[in-house]
Amino acid sequence: MAAALALSEGVRGTTSPNPPVGAVIVDVGGEVVGRGATQPPGGPHAEVMALREAGERARGGTAYVTLEPCGHQGRTPPCAQTLRDAGVAAVRYAVTDPNPPAAGGAEVLRAAGVDVVGGLLADEVAGGPLRAWLHSVRTGRPHVTWKYAATLDGRVAAADRTSRWISGPESRAEVHRIRAAADAVVAGTGTVLVDDAWLTVRGADGDLADRQPLRVVVGAREIPGTARVLDDAAPTLQLHTHDPREVLAALAERGVVDVLLEGGPTLAGAFAGAGMIDRIVGYVAPALLGAGPTALGPAGVSTITEAHRWRVEGVTMSGDDVRITAVPAAGEGGP
Amino acid sequence: MAAALALSEGVRGTTSPNPPVGAVIVDVGGEVVGRGATQPPGGPHAEVMALREAGERARGGTAYVTLEPCGHQGRTPPCAQTLRDAGVAAVRYAVTDPNPPAAGGAEVLRAAGVDVVGGLLADEVAGGPLRAWLHSVRTGRPHVTWKYAATLDGRVAAADRTSRWISGPESRAEVHRIRAAADAVVAGTGTVLVDDAWLTVRGADGDLADRQPLRVVVGAREIPGTARVLDDAAPTLQLHTHDPREVLAALAERGVVDVLLEGGPTLAGAFAGAGMIDRIVGYVAPALLGAGPTALGPAGVSTITEAHRWRVEGVTMSGDDVRITAVPAAGEGGP
Repeated sequence: MAAALALSEGVRGTTSPNPPVGAVIVDVGGEVVGRGATQPPGGPHAEVMALREAGERARGGTAYVTLEPCGHQGRTPPCAQTLRDAGVAAVRYAVTDPNPPAAGGAEVLRAAGVDVVGGLLADEVAGGPLRAWLHSVRTGRPHVTWKYAATLDGRVAAADRTSRWISGPESRAEVHRIRAAADAVVAGTGTVLVDDAWLTVRGADGDLADRQPLRVVVGAREIPGTARVLDDAAPTLQLHTHDPREVLAALAERGVVDVLLEGGPTLAGAFAGAGMIDRIVGYVAPALLGAGPTALGPAGVSTITEAHRWRVEGVTMSGDDVRITAVPAAGEGGP
Repeated sequence: MAAALALSEGVRGTTSPNPPVGAVIVDVGGEVVGRGATQPPGGPHAEVMALREAGERARGGTAYVTLEPCGHQGRTPPCAQTLRDAGVAAVRYAVTDPNPPAAGGAEVLRAAGVDVVGGLLADEVAGGPLRAWLHSVRTGRPHVTWKYAATLDGRVAAADRTSRWISGPESRAEVHRIRAAADAVVAGTGTVLVDDAWLTVRGADGDLADRQPLRVVVGAREIPGTARVLDDAAPTLQLHTHDPREVLAALAERGVVDVLLEGGPTLAGAFAGAGMIDRIVGYVAPALLGAGPTALGPAGVSTITEAHRWRVEGVTMSGDDVRITAVPAAGEGGP
């Protein structure tokens, strides 16, 4: 299942609105004979890719899949039926499919005499590659990760608005990897105008990655045609609203499941205030500025008892920076 | 040596201007027969306390001391001579005494035929109990630890200045332990006026600790006689200056070696700008406020290339909060 999970990690950002799923087929002798991951929308699911590689060696073998195989006819035939037809004797999956029309794959397989067990590495998969997709199925809106990089004293730029570089090279490289796994990267017009940000995914060599997430510029202000965000490196969408609900609805319509919110403070504050940040990834750089803008603008909090409370999910070093990830505390967060 | 280190931890905050030292005597059979730690100024040093407990069993034994035994006559006789007179056969110490008049203890002992080895757990001792004292010997001014508690978005209070509680109970309890180990707790008049802070050390039960560090209020503004910081729980000193050099000089004159700077932002900014913060202990609470004051005020930085750069020394969880400690990056920091 760990191998299936790794395969699904590799296709994050390419499958929405479908979930990034990984599958591995092991033959009767215990040898891995097929590997697959979800192809872009309209393409085969992970199970089909793995079965194609396995061919006849799938017969009598075991399929490991990160999500319960679908039991319904969509743009592709139901995977449960395909696994059964391939003669697979056993299916192990991580996460149960919460999507009502697709659910039922495990029952279809069991009814056909296949040995089915779910729940293997379920937490790792549900908190990892399938996190955003599960969230969007549950809430009907995309999952939003807010990323910021600030100094120890909470500044995202100096008094003169310069900010290159607050965080170190390791953190900046990681941000490109996080962008690569997202369907859309969202920033406010202020950030675009001040930083002239590209919002693209680049590798360590500075080259553009093959696949780029949708760039989304949010706000009423016009951006000049010469702005980097309007270059032809990736598609760009401008939404003339700051309302997080409207932004996320417009993105959901376009099949976006996984959103990376990159600021600025006004936009991040609006999302936080609306309870529409689902995860925070903060890079705290060991520097002091003593002046300059902070990461988050007004979020509807006027006194300490109204503070939005979060729970730290993980703390690691990212080069010289401290990387903090957090999720809403129980009872916090909106739809 | 680990036992000697632990003994020295226990007397931090009680020995200045002398260093908090721990000593353990092991007899010829390898049994611990004496334990001691530096007594308040004018009282016996750690070695003498340990020798008193050991009595005749020190003869032929080994002394473990966290600092090289002094070789000079001060308010107490030189410890090197006392160890020699007690018949100790071997001395192991952690940190070499950098204080010229006191140095030479190891040579005195060796000349008397005692087997002397230094450097055991030297990093742990020099970075721990002896850190502030070594710093003050080297620089001629007290060591300053700046402590703050902020939200993920860098706020130390909400828009209406309320701040109880940003950090959790574990972090607040730890701050009391840090205060207890300091010689002086320094805050600006703004903090005293807005928070009406006690700046005292209290235990988990809320009771005042037996020993209290000097409370120091810095700034020109008058504080009312009814302010909590002026109660009779601990001595309080008011300094009518914001200049960090003047503040530290005044404290050094009073024998202060280890200073805990607790804010507010204006005062912390002045210390940071002067390069007079030697260590940062930051508690980052998993909360968002989106408005309100930040931890650090103007620190002489106008553009990103002038940022004060630090190095993260450690990151741990403190209850639900993230605790970050940092020291000046190489080349940073002032006298």
